[in-house]
Amino acid sequence: MSNTAPHGKRPRIVVTNDDGITSKGIQCLAEAMTEFGDVYIVAPDSPQSGMGHAVTFSRILRLHPFEFGRGTVEARSCSGTPVDCVKLSVAEVFGEDNLPDLLVSGINHGSNASINVIYSGTMSAAVEGAMCGIPSIGFSLLDERWDADFRASVAVAKTMAAAVLERGLPAGTCLNVNIPKVSPEDLKGIRVCRQAMGHWRDTFDQRETPGGSPYYWMRGEFQNPDKGEDTDIHALEQGYASVVPVQFDLTAHHTIGTLNSWDLNRGHG
Amino acid sequence: MSNTAPHGKRPRIVVTNDDGITSKGIQCLAEAMTEFGDVYIVAPDSPQSGMGHAVTFSRILRLHPFEFGRGTVEARSCSGTPVDCVKLSVAEVFGEDNLPDLLVSGINHGSNASINVIYSGTMSAAVEGAMCGIPSIGFSLLDERWDADFRASVAVAKTMAAAVLERGLPAGTCLNVNIPKVSPEDLKGIRVCRQAMGHWRDTFDQRETPGGSPYYWMRGEFQNPDKGEDTDIHALEQGYASVVPVQFDLTAHHTIGTLNSWDLNRGHG
Repeated sequence: MSNTAPHGKRPRIVVTNDDGITSKGIQCLAEAMTEFGDVYIVAPDSPQSGMGHAVTFSRILRLHPFEFGRGTVEARSCSGTPVDCVKLSVAEVFGEDNLPDLLVSGINHGSNASINVIYSGTMSAAVEGAMCGIPSIGFSLLDERWDADFRASVAVAKTMAAAVLERGLPAGTCLNVNIPKVSPEDLKGIRVCRQAMGHWRDTFDQRETPGGSPYYWMRGEFQNPDKGEDTDIHALEQGYASVVPVQFDLTAHHTIGTLNSWDLNRGHG
Repeated sequence: MSNTAPHGKRPRIVVTNDDGITSKGIQCLAEAMTEFGDVYIVAPDSPQSGMGHAVTFSRILRLHPFEFGRGTVEARSCSGTPVDCVKLSVAEVFGEDNLPDLLVSGINHGSNASINVIYSGTMSAAVEGAMCGIPSIGFSLLDERWDADFRASVAVAKTMAAAVLERGLPAGTCLNVNIPKVSPEDLKGIRVCRQAMGHWRDTFDQRETPGGSPYYWMRGEFQNPDKGEDTDIHALEQGYASVVPVQFDLTAHHTIGTLNSWDLNRGHG
């Protein structure tokens, strides 16, 4: 385990999340990171689950000092999304020429495995960190309860933080780490995986306001037809923590040849 | 050009966007699509730019009939995000076993080339459509003005809609189509591209409320160090419309070998 960054000083670690700065998951993660470096927190002042890669440029943003404790150097709460938190921490806390050594996001209360990666504020913060050039990891526990047991997650977070501080990450990628709902003793290990090709089947509860006008509540049921043994869902079902490398080049490179065979320029140019 | 869907009936086309149901871009797109099939609109009741893949499950959603005209069959405005619009159209307008033949999103007022794909509500709607199994295309014009000239964009949208209705799209992908700010006569053609690896350098204007408390406005400057001639940015600079196939498998498959060489299970399992 390396406790010095490439610049020879104690590593500087940014912590954010999407459940909000008061959630148990970020408290556990921030405290765990103090073992590895100086911890700075910029996290949402309210729950931001499901915000995906949303960013706030048509409304104002606020940033307030926050008494976090737990051995952290500095904490601020932000009125925006998780991605806003990352952008503000880079621009206002560190500066673009003085990037932190690690960004960790979470520990999310609930799974971000499979397609959840794309809806997740936790993971979008990690993706934004990678886009800024910061080695970044998102952590999520498969337990949505506010008082979930984060002990196994903290152990995995320490392993992953140490590994990434020592080795860095391949350019253009971050890590999506999910931890099963087990005690530390029952965790089988850590597996590198691909994203399972699952999806949400959404239905909507239609209800009426007291005044009689209709509204909807979204309710989803996760479906996973992808039974691959190399997937994150499979690893989690077997009692392993899953690690999926995530990229922000969304190009489906393998389909470019097919599309080039289409005659798209008939009538143009 | 095919005007019948696989089921032998006139194609059913869903139109959405992120600029809101009253914007000129969606009016032009919906009207253009009536040439190809029966047009159904489910679009946000207010601007949703930059919402990324945000989804609304902690708050209620509303859906209102909307008088759209322009040859469309039915229109509804939605209080949620572009992704919510897609989920509601699948669940409440069509039904999962009765999917529409095409989903088009836009025409966005402003570029969604390069990394903008990840922040864009327009493109997130198309990605959600693809996740639901609907052939989906997002269109964006490189002109943010409310009264932009959409004539070249409409010509490109017609070409792309006809091609996708005829051929479908590779599984797990949708298309990100951007159109340069040129007259139809000056459009050079349509090029299949990869996403340029650009990014936003963000700064924040710090201001004070009349009462003296600080707040921020985000302002970004797009930077593109990726000079590849196969990129969307390059095609647009040369006067071509760009077509990038986009996937929602975010796994960085090429890095799994590297990560597997790390000794992550020391101390676990």
